[in-house]
Amino acid sequence: MPKPKQKKALNQCMIYFSLCEDKGFCAAGLKGKKGVQFYQGSKVNPFPVPQTLIFFGAVAMDDAMETGNLAPYQERPRTFPNMRSKPSTPLIFRILMRMNVRLLFVLLFLGFGAIFYIGASTSPIIVFVFSVCIISFLLSIYLTKWVLAKDEGPPEMGQISDAIRDGAEGFFKTQYGTISKMALLLAFVIFGIYMFRSTTPQQESSGLGRLTSASITVFSFLLGAVCSGMAGYVGMWVSVRANVRVSSAARRSAREALQIAVRAGGFSALVVVGMAVIGVAILYATFYVWLGVDSPGSMKVTDLPLLLVGYGFGASFVALFAQLGGGIYTKAADVGADLVGKVEQGIPEDDPRNPAVIADLVGDNVGDCAARGADLFESIAAEIISAMILGGSMAQRCKIEDPSGFILFPLVIHSFDLIVSSVGIFSIRGTRDPGVISVMEDPMTILQKGYSITIILAVVTFGLSTRWMLYTEQAPSAWLNFALCGLVGIMTAYSFVWITQYYTDYKHEPVRKLALSSSTGHGTNIIAGISLGLESTALPVLVISVSIISAFWLGQTSGLVDGDGNPTGGLFGTAVATMGMLSTAAYVLTMDMFGPIADNAGGIVEMSRQPESVREITDVLDAAGNTTKATTKGFAIGSAALASFLLFSAYMDEVAAFAHSPFTQVDIAIPEVFVGGLLGSMLIFLFSAWACAAVGRTAQEVVNEVRRQFIERPGIMDYKDKPDYGRCVAIVASASLKEMIKPGALAVISPIFIGILFRILGYYTGHPLLGAKVVAAMLMFATVSGILMALFLNTAGGAWDNAKKYIETGALGGKGSDSHKAAITGDTVGDPFKDTAGPSLHVLIKMLATITLVMAPVFL
Amino acid sequence: MPKPKQKKALNQCMIYFSLCEDKGFCAAGLKGKKGVQFYQGSKVNPFPVPQTLIFFGAVAMDDAMETGNLAPYQERPRTFPNMRSKPSTPLIFRILMRMNVRLLFVLLFLGFGAIFYIGASTSPIIVFVFSVCIISFLLSIYLTKWVLAKDEGPPEMGQISDAIRDGAEGFFKTQYGTISKMALLLAFVIFGIYMFRSTTPQQESSGLGRLTSASITVFSFLLGAVCSGMAGYVGMWVSVRANVRVSSAARRSAREALQIAVRAGGFSALVVVGMAVIGVAILYATFYVWLGVDSPGSMKVTDLPLLLVGYGFGASFVALFAQLGGGIYTKAADVGADLVGKVEQGIPEDDPRNPAVIADLVGDNVGDCAARGADLFESIAAEIISAMILGGSMAQRCKIEDPSGFILFPLVIHSFDLIVSSVGIFSIRGTRDPGVISVMEDPMTILQKGYSITIILAVVTFGLSTRWMLYTEQAPSAWLNFALCGLVGIMTAYSFVWITQYYTDYKHEPVRKLALSSSTGHGTNIIAGISLGLESTALPVLVISVSIISAFWLGQTSGLVDGDGNPTGGLFGTAVATMGMLSTAAYVLTMDMFGPIADNAGGIVEMSRQPESVREITDVLDAAGNTTKATTKGFAIGSAALASFLLFSAYMDEVAAFAHSPFTQVDIAIPEVFVGGLLGSMLIFLFSAWACAAVGRTAQEVVNEVRRQFIERPGIMDYKDKPDYGRCVAIVASASLKEMIKPGALAVISPIFIGILFRILGYYTGHPLLGAKVVAAMLMFATVSGILMALFLNTAGGAWDNAKKYIETGALGGKGSDSHKAAITGDTVGDPFKDTAGPSLHVLIKMLATITLVMAPVFL
Repeated sequence: MPKPKQKKALNQCMIYFSLCEDKGFCAAGLKGKKGVQFYQGSKVNPFPVPQTLIFFGAVAMDDAMETGNLAPYQERPRTFPNMRSKPSTPLIFRILMRMNVRLLFVLLFLGFGAIFYIGASTSPIIVFVFSVCIISFLLSIYLTKWVLAKDEGPPEMGQISDAIRDGAEGFFKTQYGTISKMALLLAFVIFGIYMFRSTTPQQESSGLGRLTSASITVFSFLLGAVCSGMAGYVGMWVSVRANVRVSSAARRSAREALQIAVRAGGFSALVVVGMAVIGVAILYATFYVWLGVDSPGSMKVTDLPLLLVGYGFGASFVALFAQLGGGIYTKAADVGADLVGKVEQGIPEDDPRNPAVIADLVGDNVGDCAARGADLFESIAAEIISAMILGGSMAQRCKIEDPSGFILFPLVIHSFDLIVSSVGIFSIRGTRDPGVISVMEDPMTILQKGYSITIILAVVTFGLSTRWMLYTEQAPSAWLNFALCGLVGIMTAYSFVWITQYYTDYKHEPVRKLALSSSTGHGTNIIAGISLGLESTALPVLVISVSIISAFWLGQTSGLVDGDGNPTGGLFGTAVATMGMLSTAAYVLTMDMFGPIADNAGGIVEMSRQPESVREITDVLDAAGNTTKATTKGFAIGSAALASFLLFSAYMDEVAAFAHSPFTQVDIAIPEVFVGGLLGSMLIFLFSAWACAAVGRTAQEVVNEVRRQFIERPGIMDYKDKPDYGRCVAIVASASLKEMIKPGALAVISPIFIGILFRILGYYTGHPLLGAKVVAAMLMFATVSGILMALFLNTAGGAWDNAKKYIETGALGGKGSDSHKAAITGDTVGDPFKDTAGPSLHVLIKMLATITLVMAPVFL
Repeated sequence: MPKPKQKKALNQCMIYFSLCEDKGFCAAGLKGKKGVQFYQGSKVNPFPVPQTLIFFGAVAMDDAMETGNLAPYQERPRTFPNMRSKPSTPLIFRILMRMNVRLLFVLLFLGFGAIFYIGASTSPIIVFVFSVCIISFLLSIYLTKWVLAKDEGPPEMGQISDAIRDGAEGFFKTQYGTISKMALLLAFVIFGIYMFRSTTPQQESSGLGRLTSASITVFSFLLGAVCSGMAGYVGMWVSVRANVRVSSAARRSAREALQIAVRAGGFSALVVVGMAVIGVAILYATFYVWLGVDSPGSMKVTDLPLLLVGYGFGASFVALFAQLGGGIYTKAADVGADLVGKVEQGIPEDDPRNPAVIADLVGDNVGDCAARGADLFESIAAEIISAMILGGSMAQRCKIEDPSGFILFPLVIHSFDLIVSSVGIFSIRGTRDPGVISVMEDPMTILQKGYSITIILAVVTFGLSTRWMLYTEQAPSAWLNFALCGLVGIMTAYSFVWITQYYTDYKHEPVRKLALSSSTGHGTNIIAGISLGLESTALPVLVISVSIISAFWLGQTSGLVDGDGNPTGGLFGTAVATMGMLSTAAYVLTMDMFGPIADNAGGIVEMSRQPESVREITDVLDAAGNTTKATTKGFAIGSAALASFLLFSAYMDEVAAFAHSPFTQVDIAIPEVFVGGLLGSMLIFLFSAWACAAVGRTAQEVVNEVRRQFIERPGIMDYKDKPDYGRCVAIVASASLKEMIKPGALAVISPIFIGILFRILGYYTGHPLLGAKVVAAMLMFATVSGILMALFLNTAGGAWDNAKKYIETGALGGKGSDSHKAAITGDTVGDPFKDTAGPSLHVLIKMLATITLVMAPVFL
């Protein structure tokens, strides 16, 4: 019961309020029995009313607490609506599952046999690559089994996890349904274009007809798209299963929870990287055998990689929409849930009373796991293919006797990536005595130790691979130069990770200053965050610049020369550096996947109301996950920058091949080319605008729905009524599917449109190759602006997030203070920055590069 | 007296508060006798305390109002501290003022005579230009006399105006003291470089020694710097005098107030444009006569414009620092004043109780008037010079007999600009009956009418000028093509104005949506504003692209061909379009200057507590001023985009001349050149970051100072104590001087550093011209990114400002609602965007272009 004095004060205040009303100041009242609601209407309102009203709301809740209406958390019923309709498994899995196990084994055996046969007829290197990939698939199956063997905890955890899984699988199904329709449409367009395009002299001489080349491109495109979809599915599949197991393990041991999250992440990382590598390898080997490469009168092996570009484009096309849709989903749900839950109602994050909480947890899976899987899959695929193209064209120019080493080098590097990353993943072990809750170690230290092991091994294997693959008698020391290029790449990756940590971790100056700026209000917090983000672009750009130039220089001085004695290894040097950067990709992806799994586990712990100690464990894991997520983004954008430069060079090679004339320069002093650049940069700004706006709009829909539920079911706040989680999930899902189309279509259509437009303009003004040049400029400017914009968005978002976390540790007034509120605003703004627009830009940059590669024939 | 019930309620609430304290919820109390102060310390704080406390503050004030402690505004003493120390007039003015009037006239007469003599020996066109400029100076003197003849209103207005004037003049003096020291240092550097540089073949053949060319460049640089400083001074000089006269006139008639503001703006516009034109003309004529141009064995007239680049660099160097310092000053004061005054204390804008209010009003003068004057001065100067260079080189290539028409064309266009804009300015008349308060008209309509008159006249005079200057028998219809180019430019300017209005005026969809997004909180408002800003870059880029290509095409098809029969008029066509865009510059600048004058007038009216009706008039003028300010920014960035493209071409011409080899292309496929581009774009991001951060930091200092004053002098809030305005002025002034150095130095030093670094790198790797190429790429990428970033910053800032104004009209809850608070946050964030970083970027783009032009010799 409230003390009488208190109750009187409350009444008096209410009376005072109605007095205010008479004076035209403001009007406020209490309405309803269960909940506390307010209305207001002000003429001249010199002080902020609604906050005051929330104060009364709190008073009323306080009353309820004392009268016993609001019993402690643990005594509440722990059931959740069973949202599980029926398990949704993709058709192909269902067919596989219904098959006889023996038949399946026979089929698998035959399949692998055929693959190995084709591989063996191509090159022993391909056999090596196949073997490593298959071993890593087996390893990943072991990891899944290990993870799935863990217990799912008490039933309330299972219920929540089921709800999340259903939401994620449902969205995935619809989303990929839409994407596959678009991909099919695009496949038809590509087929049409390739049927009417001109052919390269090489193709003509090898008798590669239009139909063949059209089929090859379309087939690669579709295979890339399917593999990318599978990469996304795998990422999500494991995370929706691992989350509950991590929550359950957190009740026992921090170390065990960490291990489960890491191994689940490792599973999808191995599958994603393995699939990218084996996909390219199979395509390469198949085409090699099918087209009878290197036999007299047919295609040369150095021209073969150009046929694979469709695979990269398919992968990046799907990844773009996956990232957009998933990114909009996760952040719209997050922002919507926070704005009403945290800010308006003052309930904690992931509180079961919030109707949008399940949508938010689903978002982590579809946004972070599925999308990042697709993102890194296409990074690796695109980078392998562009490096193969550059290796091939360099080998041809240098007239190297056996060019297969230079062409297949990227595949070998990534095979070693699978090996060394597996070692890294398995180096993270559980405690010997799992029954005892171990002393909490910093998970970042453990993950970093694994990373160090992986990096050291990667340096060693990289050196060995260059000696094995890139030794040629024409330039005996070239391999050493290329090994140094790889070292440049590894160091670049390390610097990127370090710089991102410096700008986004609250151990360092920038985030602390950002937190301090929250103490003077929302406005100064936003200004400081935006400045921090803009400033954080400087160091990465310097690092990238130094590594491009030094890798190019190392390549150029490698001793490899063309027929006229000019050094030609420069671009390939850059390619090798890119491979160095990605040589620990699987481990990095593991760390990245770890983040959303830990985040989800924390959500399940919070929703199933576990004791404080369990929540502490998942909180620490979650915090580490935030850091790894931020650093992976730095890593992804760094590799995107290098990969785009490679793809750009590959594009120029390809245009030259199609146009039957050299195409070695893009001259921005030509007005049309300059305009192309202007349009390219503009594309980045417009795309970011639309991606952010999509989140804003969808979040507003969520806010309105959550507000509606709180008004219509006032019992939700005191656990008497169940929130309708399903409606929020449905709203976010349909809105994000709708919203992903506009920016995605912009990205796909505009380079094609601009290319064709300027091709026509060039035709009438007598400029040959104008279309191709304008597209090249567009691509370059878009890449540069895209890198900067992505760095800005990712870092600003990460810094805001951690500034809020820093305040929540108790600094500057701690939770609930004005500084904290300003920091929450910053975090809300940062959400679409770092998880929608930023990562979509990584993919966009590479999608632009691959689309121009595939569409090159129409620009001529 | 407060009603007993009310008083009781208040007491009870206070008791309740102390009860809360016991529960560890929050602690708050009342302290002191005069003012109402609060402290808080919270452990678990589920509701926002300080806002609640402000509520109690308001209650206490309310009590005071009824007991008579807080009498109505008008009865308060209206005195302000006399901050006037001693009139600070620049030395040159003091010398002039002390001279005998007759002697002055004789000197002036002699001076003009000399100028006309030199002009007459050069070309009759120069005489025409001189005459127009001198007439427009006389007109501007008439305008000043007219404005100064108006009354200064009651003494309290005069006191406020004096305080503003002192603050502005004091800051101007210190700021330009710092800038001139830096300019002198740079002049020495330039002199040194030119003494050791290589010379062009043309210079060698004309016997132009190193010393002569070094002296010419340094002299032009210093003259440009001095003129730019004067342009800034003139803008501020008139605005600090006109503001009080506008306030005073607003007591009588809206129309008269409008007329005074417009004529004051017109004065500085005519002086700024006139000075830019006459400066270039005098330099041109002097060098022409001094170097004996076109006489046998000496320099050709087509090479002359290249000697003028120093003037453009001097102008843009000063403008950059003026804009940075002024921009930081004005927005730090504004943000600081608003954060404590509006948000924390709930007092209205420009309230005399706010210690930062004078600093805020000073800021309008030094930030908007002085800086924008310098900005447009250098725009016009740089654009005239680059068009002259391009005209000269084209005339030379086409071997046109009398090239002076093509070279002097820009000067003629701007002379006509002075004439037609004067007509536009004088077309805005007062009412016939100044004693009667006229019915309020929309000032935008009146200003737009004047603009329409100006534009129609500009189209006519542009057509006539092209026929007069650009008719050549080699291509009889070329002038018509160039007239069309001018039309393209005028239409581009008009489109830019329209697009800016669409995105920033609350009559249209975007700002209304932005306002709507405020209703779901601070976060969604910021996300929506950033998306709006990013999206708003698309249309202007499309317009610029179309105009560059169409003007180039019109120029190319003009019939002008070089010795080999290739069409060469393209670039000059773009130059003509730029001139078309700037052909109404003086009128546009008038509208722009109108804004801060009206804003200041509103501040003076508020501070001297005039009746509501007067405030309404200045509010309407202020709102119109906001729109004109936003549209001028669109205009400025559009012309900067075109001018930079011209300056880039001029740079390539110059490099070719110095390097004794053709330099026609910048190939971004070369890694180093690509890196140059990357660094150029990064420069824009870093510069924007530092500019925004400077405002944030300085604003935080202001916030702390204002908070301190409110705490130490609790009497301020009820007018019993005077705030210390001077301390805020001093803090802002010294902080903004300090803060302008870092971004400014970055902009000046980095192109020079990059150029020299890559020159050295090129030397060791055997790449001739690498430094020049990398700088060219840097320039282009910086231009493109700069245009986009400036558009983003300006539009987002303007839209946030007007979204707040829209809510203040009563929409979405009106003043004091939660939506309004979110909108204020947006406005605060937008302040440094639209008035510091955005406008500084306009200047930066052109400064980069001119610095590379002047420094070209060191890159080779």
